[in-house]
Amino acid sequence: MTSLAISYDDVAGAHERLAGIAHRTPVMTSATANERSGATLFFKCENLQRIGAFKIRGAYNAVAQFTPEQRERGVITFSSGNHGQAIALAAHLLGVEAVIVMPADAPEMKVAATRGHGGEVVRYDRYAEDPNAVVQRFVAERGMTFIPPFDHPHVMAGQGTLAKELFEEVGELDLLVTPVGGGGLMSGCATAARALSPGCALVGVEPEAGNDAQQSLAQGRIVRIDTPRTIADAAQSRSLGQHTFPVLQQLGVRIVTVSDPALVEAMGFFATRMKLVVEPTGCLAAAAVLSGAMDVKGLRVGVVLSGGNVDLAHFAQLVAT
Amino acid sequence: MTSLAISYDDVAGAHERLAGIAHRTPVMTSATANERSGATLFFKCENLQRIGAFKIRGAYNAVAQFTPEQRERGVITFSSGNHGQAIALAAHLLGVEAVIVMPADAPEMKVAATRGHGGEVVRYDRYAEDPNAVVQRFVAERGMTFIPPFDHPHVMAGQGTLAKELFEEVGELDLLVTPVGGGGLMSGCATAARALSPGCALVGVEPEAGNDAQQSLAQGRIVRIDTPRTIADAAQSRSLGQHTFPVLQQLGVRIVTVSDPALVEAMGFFATRMKLVVEPTGCLAAAAVLSGAMDVKGLRVGVVLSGGNVDLAHFAQLVAT
Repeated sequence: MTSLAISYDDVAGAHERLAGIAHRTPVMTSATANERSGATLFFKCENLQRIGAFKIRGAYNAVAQFTPEQRERGVITFSSGNHGQAIALAAHLLGVEAVIVMPADAPEMKVAATRGHGGEVVRYDRYAEDPNAVVQRFVAERGMTFIPPFDHPHVMAGQGTLAKELFEEVGELDLLVTPVGGGGLMSGCATAARALSPGCALVGVEPEAGNDAQQSLAQGRIVRIDTPRTIADAAQSRSLGQHTFPVLQQLGVRIVTVSDPALVEAMGFFATRMKLVVEPTGCLAAAAVLSGAMDVKGLRVGVVLSGGNVDLAHFAQLVAT
Repeated sequence: MTSLAISYDDVAGAHERLAGIAHRTPVMTSATANERSGATLFFKCENLQRIGAFKIRGAYNAVAQFTPEQRERGVITFSSGNHGQAIALAAHLLGVEAVIVMPADAPEMKVAATRGHGGEVVRYDRYAEDPNAVVQRFVAERGMTFIPPFDHPHVMAGQGTLAKELFEEVGELDLLVTPVGGGGLMSGCATAARALSPGCALVGVEPEAGNDAQQSLAQGRIVRIDTPRTIADAAQSRSLGQHTFPVLQQLGVRIVTVSDPALVEAMGFFATRMKLVVEPTGCLAAAAVLSGAMDVKGLRVGVVLSGGNVDLAHFAQLVAT
């Protein structure tokens, strides 16, 4: 067993750093969801987190550990989604300059949200340029520190704090289910689970259209796929990372997949029955449990609702049809 | 000063009865809402309450105080909305039979929800029959007890428990804002406020199309209007009640009104920024604060989001346009 990128102490340290910064999000229950699944479900509502997703946890934990020189030179990342907003807000809270590299055709709403948190948005042409090259130019020219969206120990440890809060609130669980994109969220949560609820089974949920994590764990190596076509836009990652993959592998994470229609159904369930707006990616774990894709009868199950950032017109179009 | 229908002791008693029955709903905050209003806003999220609205508080508090004979004979009410579902669930939890009288053309979704909570639905033709007559027939023939939607001391005291929770959580406030239909919610909340935050100003919010409470308080008598045309369907009451009016009058409640477009704007705000589904009526108080209809600068303000029960297609249609 090689040594893993993070330990539970890293998660606990992150949690101290995040006190007063990230919301301690509510854990909600639903009699209807329990009836439907036959389980006792605890929904960890990260859609109600600052910036509308769990990503602020990892982003803040990373930028907060910058040296004085790093703080002076700033942080850079590429993202058209939640991680970009999270880095922008984390940097703003810490008085650090942030550059977020986004595709030239990214939705104006997302650009505006990122700027609203205080980030400088740099656009690139995604048909002609590699965002990594844009990032590396800033790193070389301005000495900025690159914080990737998931494959970084501080990011992974930060995401794990939500599982720590969940176990502290509801006690040990039989099963914890989270969305899986690049594995940052699950690697942190799995690390917290092994310390706080050692018998807890761990299931990551991917969109059916892009099951690279499932393939990777089956083959024992990181499998890379083309960007999958799915409404779960925050889980369109092409592979797990060098740091996240070994954690998922060694801590015994299993992967299941769900279809886009199951995500839409779950979105409708949350809006109708629990009065919550959950983005498609945020529904991955819940859809696996509510659609019957997994048998959870009789179990106490933690279900991470990872985010709620969905354009309102898109949301309306999905749930109303 | 005539003696009022309820005192703070009634609210405190209701709160004990509701322990373990009604959710202690979360109080949420939003940096964006604070910026927009210039105030510090505390949103009491009764859209996350059981049955999706505060009404379970009053309904349960009423049915729980039935004598053994009343319990044996059952409870009846008329409502096509939240009060009907609340009575159905309260009766179910207490092992009491419930009849809910609903218009023959009430949406199937609402009929199903009421039945889902264990209520017997009796339909009437609202163009040919008076629902009061239908209710009185059941009272006469089967000895059932009628619990009206707002004008009943036990209902009023139950609704006040949400304000008690709010003050206990955030301390005293400068201002408390709630929707006003028949005045059940505000009469309970005002009673709690006078005991727990004596200096707190009280503002009730009505739809612009039906300002009967505003007229009533201005004229010092209960003014009755035609059923107003508004999307705030749970505030389409035609007048305050004999019990609620004196409470609002003597405890110094002021009334402001908001337009339907302001309600739609608030619904969009909650879905986009706070990831919450709030029904049109549930947005009344927030719309008054966020639209600039009231000057709240520098104040600590409690804002009641009273419910989240809105048909998903209707919700989508309202917010997406």
